[in-house]
Amino acid sequence: MDAHSYIEEQTPLIEGRLEAALPPADEEPGELHAAMRHLLFPGGKRFRPMLAFAGAEAVGGSPERALPIAAAVELIHAYTLIHDDLPCMDDDDERRGRPTVHVAYGEAIAVLAGDALQSLAFEILASCDEGHEAVSVASVIRDLALAAGSRRLVGGQADDLVYDPKDVDPVRIESVHARKTAALIATSIAGGARLAGASEAELERLESFGLEVGIAFQIADDLLDEDENDECSLARALGREGAESRAQELLESALARIEGFGERAEPLRELARFALQRKV
Amino acid sequence: MDAHSYIEEQTPLIEGRLEAALPPADEEPGELHAAMRHLLFPGGKRFRPMLAFAGAEAVGGSPERALPIAAAVELIHAYTLIHDDLPCMDDDDERRGRPTVHVAYGEAIAVLAGDALQSLAFEILASCDEGHEAVSVASVIRDLALAAGSRRLVGGQADDLVYDPKDVDPVRIESVHARKTAALIATSIAGGARLAGASEAELERLESFGLEVGIAFQIADDLLDEDENDECSLARALGREGAESRAQELLESALARIEGFGERAEPLRELARFALQRKV
Repeated sequence: MDAHSYIEEQTPLIEGRLEAALPPADEEPGELHAAMRHLLFPGGKRFRPMLAFAGAEAVGGSPERALPIAAAVELIHAYTLIHDDLPCMDDDDERRGRPTVHVAYGEAIAVLAGDALQSLAFEILASCDEGHEAVSVASVIRDLALAAGSRRLVGGQADDLVYDPKDVDPVRIESVHARKTAALIATSIAGGARLAGASEAELERLESFGLEVGIAFQIADDLLDEDENDECSLARALGREGAESRAQELLESALARIEGFGERAEPLRELARFALQRKV
Repeated sequence: MDAHSYIEEQTPLIEGRLEAALPPADEEPGELHAAMRHLLFPGGKRFRPMLAFAGAEAVGGSPERALPIAAAVELIHAYTLIHDDLPCMDDDDERRGRPTVHVAYGEAIAVLAGDALQSLAFEILASCDEGHEAVSVASVIRDLALAAGSRRLVGGQADDLVYDPKDVDPVRIESVHARKTAALIATSIAGGARLAGASEAELERLESFGLEVGIAFQIADDLLDEDENDECSLARALGREGAESRAQELLESALARIEGFGERAEPLRELARFALQRKV
C-alpha cells in the first residue's frame, strides 16, 4: 500500500460525494453555483479527504464511514483558498494554473461562494444519514467548527496578515502553522475516525498525530515555495536544512504516536510520509 | 404582553450568551476578535433571537431552550452584514451610526471576522448541552446551514447583485426576499421551537408563518429605505401603497397559520406585528 495507489483508489469516492453535494452550475443563481464549483472541479489531490478515509481505516472502519467529514473538510479548505486569494488578502490571480474565483467571477461572487461553501460543509455533516450516531455527528460538527474558527484556522490567517518578517521565533511560527494548517488536518483524521466509531483514547492519539503532521506539511509546503520573501515560514528562522530536519522530526514523532494502531494505520502513515515529500 | 416589553425582558438572555460565546477582544489574534465583536456589541434589537425565543414559547418551551439557535442566527446575521458592507459588495462605510467593520479594521480582517462568525454559529449549536436531544440539534444545524447557504440566504444576496432594476415582477422580487431574508427568520422561529420539542406538524406551520413574516419584514424594511433607487424592492413594482398592503396581507396570512397555537404564541404574534410597524 503506497500513498499514490491509495489516493487513486479512494478518489472516486470523494469525487462522487462532492459532485452530489454541490448544486449544479445551471441551477439559479448560476454564477454563484459555478463559482462554488470552480476551485473544486478539477480539484487537487484531495489530501484532507484522504486523511479522513485513512483515519477511519486506522480504527477499523471503512472509508465510506468518513465520507461526510471528508467532503466537509474539502469544502472548508476550498472556501479558505477562495477568500485567501481575494485582492484584500493575498491578491492571487492564478491557482493550479487557472484563474482564481474572483478573477473568473468577480470579487462579490467570490466572497459569497466562499461563504456558501462553508455553510454547505456543515449542511453535509448535519445531513449525514449513513447510520452514524447523532452524538458522534454533533461532536464532529463541533470539532470542525472549532478547527475552522477564530482560535484555529481563521485565527492563523489573521496572524499571517500581521506577521512581522523580522520575527524568526520558531515556536511562534509553528504556532501559526498549527492553527492555520494543522488544526484542519487533525480534524480530518480525527473526524474520520470518530465517524468510524473510534474511542476517546484513539481520537486523542490521532489528533496529536494530525497536529504534528499538519505542521510538518506546512513547513514542507513553504520549502517548495520559491519566493518565501515575507511569508511566515520556518525556513526563514532555521534555514532550509534546519526546516527540513524539523519537519522530519515532527513526522517521526507523529508516527511514534500511532505505532500501536498496527497494520490498519498503514494508509495514514503512507499519506503522512507522502505529504512531506510533497508529491501530494 | 407587547413586543417592546417582551424584547426588554428577554434581552439579557441573548446578550449574556453572545458575550460568553465571543472570544474576548484581548485574546489573540486581538484585531480579529475585536472585529468579530464590533457589530455585535452594541447590537440591534436582536430580532431573530427574539423570534427564536418566541418560537420555543409557542410550543410550550422556555426561551432558554432556544438559546443556542438564538445566538447562532444572530451570528449568521452579523456575518452577512459584515460581508455585505464590504467595498466589493454594497460598499457601506457606516451601520447603526458607527463605522462598518472593514472601515474600522480593514477589508482582510472584515472578511475573516465574517468567516469566523459563521463557524462560531455552528460551534455554538453543536456544543449545546442544555439537555437537548442530539437528533434535534443535528436537525437544527442542518436547517440553519440550508437557510444560510447558496439556495437561500447567500443565493438571495447573489440575486440581489445582478438584480435588474427594470425587473418589476413581484413574484420574482418576493422570491429574492424569501431567500435573502425570510429563510433565516423562519429558521429562527422553527429552530427555537424544535429545540423546545415541537412536533413536525407544529414546525411546518411555524416555518410557513416565518417565511411570510420574513417577506413582509423585508417589504417593510425597503419601504423605510429612503433611497430605493436600484434596489430589489416591492415598492418599485407595486408602488408604496401596493407594497404596504401586500405586507399587511402576508402578515394576516401568517397569523392565520398559527391561530391554533393559542395564548402561548402571543409573543410571536406581537413580534410579527411589531416588526411590520418597523419599530424593531
